[in-house]
Amino acid sequence: MRPEVLDNALPLQVISCPADATAWTKARIAAGRRVAFVPTMGALHEGHLALVRRALSLADEVVVSIFVNPTQFGPSEDFSRYPRTFQRDIELLSAQGAAMVFAPSADDMYAERFSTSISPPAVAAPLEGLFRPGHFSGVCTVVLKLFQIVPAQVAVFGQKDFQQARVIQDMVADLNLDITIDVLATVRESDGLAMSSRNRYLSPTDRKRALGLSTALNRVFELHQNGKSDAASLEQEMRQVLEQTPVDSIDYAGIVDPVTLLSLQSPLPPAARSTATDQLAGIKPVAVALIAAHISGTRLIDNRLLFASE
Amino acid sequence: MRPEVLDNALPLQVISCPADATAWTKARIAAGRRVAFVPTMGALHEGHLALVRRALSLADEVVVSIFVNPTQFGPSEDFSRYPRTFQRDIELLSAQGAAMVFAPSADDMYAERFSTSISPPAVAAPLEGLFRPGHFSGVCTVVLKLFQIVPAQVAVFGQKDFQQARVIQDMVADLNLDITIDVLATVRESDGLAMSSRNRYLSPTDRKRALGLSTALNRVFELHQNGKSDAASLEQEMRQVLEQTPVDSIDYAGIVDPVTLLSLQSPLPPAARSTATDQLAGIKPVAVALIAAHISGTRLIDNRLLFASE
Repeated sequence: MRPEVLDNALPLQVISCPADATAWTKARIAAGRRVAFVPTMGALHEGHLALVRRALSLADEVVVSIFVNPTQFGPSEDFSRYPRTFQRDIELLSAQGAAMVFAPSADDMYAERFSTSISPPAVAAPLEGLFRPGHFSGVCTVVLKLFQIVPAQVAVFGQKDFQQARVIQDMVADLNLDITIDVLATVRESDGLAMSSRNRYLSPTDRKRALGLSTALNRVFELHQNGKSDAASLEQEMRQVLEQTPVDSIDYAGIVDPVTLLSLQSPLPPAARSTATDQLAGIKPVAVALIAAHISGTRLIDNRLLFASE
Repeated sequence: MRPEVLDNALPLQVISCPADATAWTKARIAAGRRVAFVPTMGALHEGHLALVRRALSLADEVVVSIFVNPTQFGPSEDFSRYPRTFQRDIELLSAQGAAMVFAPSADDMYAERFSTSISPPAVAAPLEGLFRPGHFSGVCTVVLKLFQIVPAQVAVFGQKDFQQARVIQDMVADLNLDITIDVLATVRESDGLAMSSRNRYLSPTDRKRALGLSTALNRVFELHQNGKSDAASLEQEMRQVLEQTPVDSIDYAGIVDPVTLLSLQSPLPPAARSTATDQLAGIKPVAVALIAAHISGTRLIDNRLLFASE
């Protein structure tokens, strides 16, 4: 008998009932297994699969949730047309070696008299908070619920949603949630476009225009590397790239403090020439450049960290 | 060796660091022990000790928290003069057989950048919600934090704070918190006054006037037993008793739905003559009568459940 092989051969479990998902997770933890959790809205792409592989490197079992959470979409946003590719998602997660998928219905998550929510931390107020009122309250509430339903030891989020990761980190600290938050660098297409479930909304022409975001962020990264340290003029450079692309409109293109997400008052420290990586872990960034822009009705976001020399 | 005796002889542990309290609780649960939790603000009286005994009947180990939570007091309320009797509390809990006291400082609970809070469920809006804005947000936030820090299987609350118990029950359901909420009947002095840490503010004269609350509630209970079913006239009876007492002012004296805490529109179902108990468990009440009133600057609350015949 080779239990490891038998164990690996177990089929992916798909659970929709919250109580069952909790029982599943607690049984694994009681058996001494380390569980990592990757919350998603499905429509999985290579970025999500990188989160799953990261989770597998941190734990014995990986749980992925698939739930398009209605409460984090505004009334004019794309909840109803958000891509849903459930069967394909399950196949991809099975191939990656995930152990359980938690896929509740909206009714499973929100009972008739549901009325409690999370008032998110201060870091939720700028940037996305100005353009998507209520979004981070919806995100915090569903993520807190998911963390209770799947009481994993670690959860992995993508850096593409940088502000979301910061919001979750602060909520976890403020509310003493017993989970470690891991943030993985953004996975990009070969031409630099950040992977996103919303990229499939883009026509071939839109797809080319969408490169404006990563191009603008790369330009700022290089300028900072070359000694430019004034946040306002770096922001101006980003806007120029985006206006030349052109994107249809810019919600924000800012360079902010990576902890508070507030505007930087002083010049940025000079860059570390040796640091080409774009990871949250390890060296602490001195600033983060973030963009949200619209292209033919699709709202795209992206960001890049700026590092100082030691 | 008689390990049970050794175990029972273990002194009460007092822990102030949240991470240590979590580690303590998780170690007990991993060892197969059932843990019950009693959150308090200290200044313990016989009502609290009844909660501890109830908790001991539900679990192997009882954790009590002592924390006078600043965020649930309004600016004009009695946070600074709230009674603090820590050494006596510890002696009482040790004698009851509690295993651990979690007694953090305000800094242990609220770090400098703390900014996340709970927007409480709908049941928090009427009654106390109208007179103590922000109170239940403070309660929900600290209770959720305490439930994360002390991940017990069950928590015991007192029925004296009936609306608080309902708020916690709905928060637990809405946010999928993995804990059972148990509510224990109010413990009273021999003359009927509900036990409260705030009773020690009362002068002997005030102490007599404070009986107006339980007297008014008993009057309503008897009238309902005797067939009176109109909520408005029952409320009028309560106010009459309180005005004769007299109390200095009445925040509310209402008869409401025990689930929603909203006004009852229809006549109450007739009472069950055989049901003299005042417990939340077992038979479901058809209504609850609640009072908040002021006596010489001390705000007192009390309530009583009204039961229907089957």
